[in-house]
Amino acid sequence: MSPDFRAEWRARVDAELDRLLPAAEAWPANLHRAIRHSVFAGGKRLRPILAMAAARACGGDLEQVLPAACGLEMIHTYSLIHDDLPALDDDDWRRGVPTCHKAFGEATAILAGDALLTHGLACLAEYPEGEKFDGAKVRVVRAVAEAIGTAGMIGGQVEDLEAEKDGPGAERSIGRLEKIHAHKTGRLIRASLAVGGLLSFAPEASLSLLDAYGEKLGLAFQIKDDLLDVESTREELGKETGKDSAHGKMTFPGLLGVEESRRCLEEAIGEARAAAARLERGDGPLGDLAGFVAARKN
Amino acid sequence: MSPDFRAEWRARVDAELDRLLPAAEAWPANLHRAIRHSVFAGGKRLRPILAMAAARACGGDLEQVLPAACGLEMIHTYSLIHDDLPALDDDDWRRGVPTCHKAFGEATAILAGDALLTHGLACLAEYPEGEKFDGAKVRVVRAVAEAIGTAGMIGGQVEDLEAEKDGPGAERSIGRLEKIHAHKTGRLIRASLAVGGLLSFAPEASLSLLDAYGEKLGLAFQIKDDLLDVESTREELGKETGKDSAHGKMTFPGLLGVEESRRCLEEAIGEARAAAARLERGDGPLGDLAGFVAARKN
Repeated sequence: MSPDFRAEWRARVDAELDRLLPAAEAWPANLHRAIRHSVFAGGKRLRPILAMAAARACGGDLEQVLPAACGLEMIHTYSLIHDDLPALDDDDWRRGVPTCHKAFGEATAILAGDALLTHGLACLAEYPEGEKFDGAKVRVVRAVAEAIGTAGMIGGQVEDLEAEKDGPGAERSIGRLEKIHAHKTGRLIRASLAVGGLLSFAPEASLSLLDAYGEKLGLAFQIKDDLLDVESTREELGKETGKDSAHGKMTFPGLLGVEESRRCLEEAIGEARAAAARLERGDGPLGDLAGFVAARKN
Repeated sequence: MSPDFRAEWRARVDAELDRLLPAAEAWPANLHRAIRHSVFAGGKRLRPILAMAAARACGGDLEQVLPAACGLEMIHTYSLIHDDLPALDDDDWRRGVPTCHKAFGEATAILAGDALLTHGLACLAEYPEGEKFDGAKVRVVRAVAEAIGTAGMIGGQVEDLEAEKDGPGAERSIGRLEKIHAHKTGRLIRASLAVGGLLSFAPEASLSLLDAYGEKLGLAFQIKDDLLDVESTREELGKETGKDSAHGKMTFPGLLGVEESRRCLEEAIGEARAAAARLERGDGPLGDLAGFVAARKN
């Protein structure tokens, strides 16, 4: 597998997102511009690419999985837009451009997030077309909705806000930090892999391996995120750096130190690679993506 | 059909909502309390009752349609919570109790709305259980997502905000007002009827009649809402009254006068009744609900 596949798949995802999202001129134009501002701010498209990689590993058809994979990116972008709002994380920059509420105002940002969540879940119910996918699509919507619901992503966001609000007396432990991340980012990453597997009619054993891979990849992703926050510049990262420690946020390097965090990152990547090796013959996209998550610069 | 059916169905909807929503004690408890605060503030449950009435008219099974009908109420409540936010309509009271952000803070209200949208769409994908409903559920999720998306409910909300922001020079016309309402409230009311019809495997002709009924009922509902705002007290309505004219909002009585608005209301109700009569033999719930919408006091 040539590592170029990431750039190629990313381009396919971008083209498909452009096709699936309402045109910027269509009524209500200002809202559609806000949606496109955030979706096309240059994300890594990790979640759609993971869904496609899972489909490839399970013998599925990439073209069939592509629109549902884009639904995952819409849902991810919704979560970023709402997390960035003044009432939540209050961030001004994201992916190198002003956040949605900075560029379009708070009301529009709230509605743009709502719209992306709605449209994203709709894509999962709608694609791939054809009756033979009806049962798989019902399972897909259920899996993703559970992953991003109150016992999943939203719960992680609540816990994160509460941990920050608790102040100096708060419980600061690796257990609490891992719980936040496992929910806030881990669950959607795992669900993305499930989408690729379910739409490829993968057997339960493969779905379990995909989930194990996703769990370790998600953990690695977050440790790397925290390491980037202390080791990168704003130019490299496209958003403010050093913000975590300035806000007294729990982070892996803050709790474990940089060296131990790097060791945990390597360990998680090793476990993800092991699960990938049981799903893919030789070099496959899942194995490659594990390496990419550990090495990425933003 | 005894008019008691409304109270009875409403009780069934409330019990089912209680079953479907996460327990208030379950993690993240504060969020679940906020969700239940808004859902159980005493709504009319119009949308679930419409879905059930449509199912009854099309020979469907009420018990089967009930959880999906509750999904519609969750989606409706999400839209109220987000509309009430300070960045949008900035309302302090709703259904006789403090709005979600007043009681739980803005961050929690944003996330509670997100969760209800997610959970509501998930209910539509999940229920009724059983393979024979897979195709119908895929159509249901698509219809509802379209109705509440940017070309539907969210678009209406954007247009409403823009109409208010445009100030004294704004276009103030019945055409613009009807466009706002047809999208902001009308589309979800029509979709609620479609849900009942689709899950009862209704033929296309019945689905068209349900849609015609819903269009007129939605219009009547909104004219009545505007009339209540000028004719009711806060105690009767459970929220501030006279707020529309104080904010210079377009309303039916404001543009047409009270008498002409009442005439339009009667006309819309008459058309809704005519569509209901083609769907139901004798007195049925759809016909009854048209009368209820015209006569309601809150």
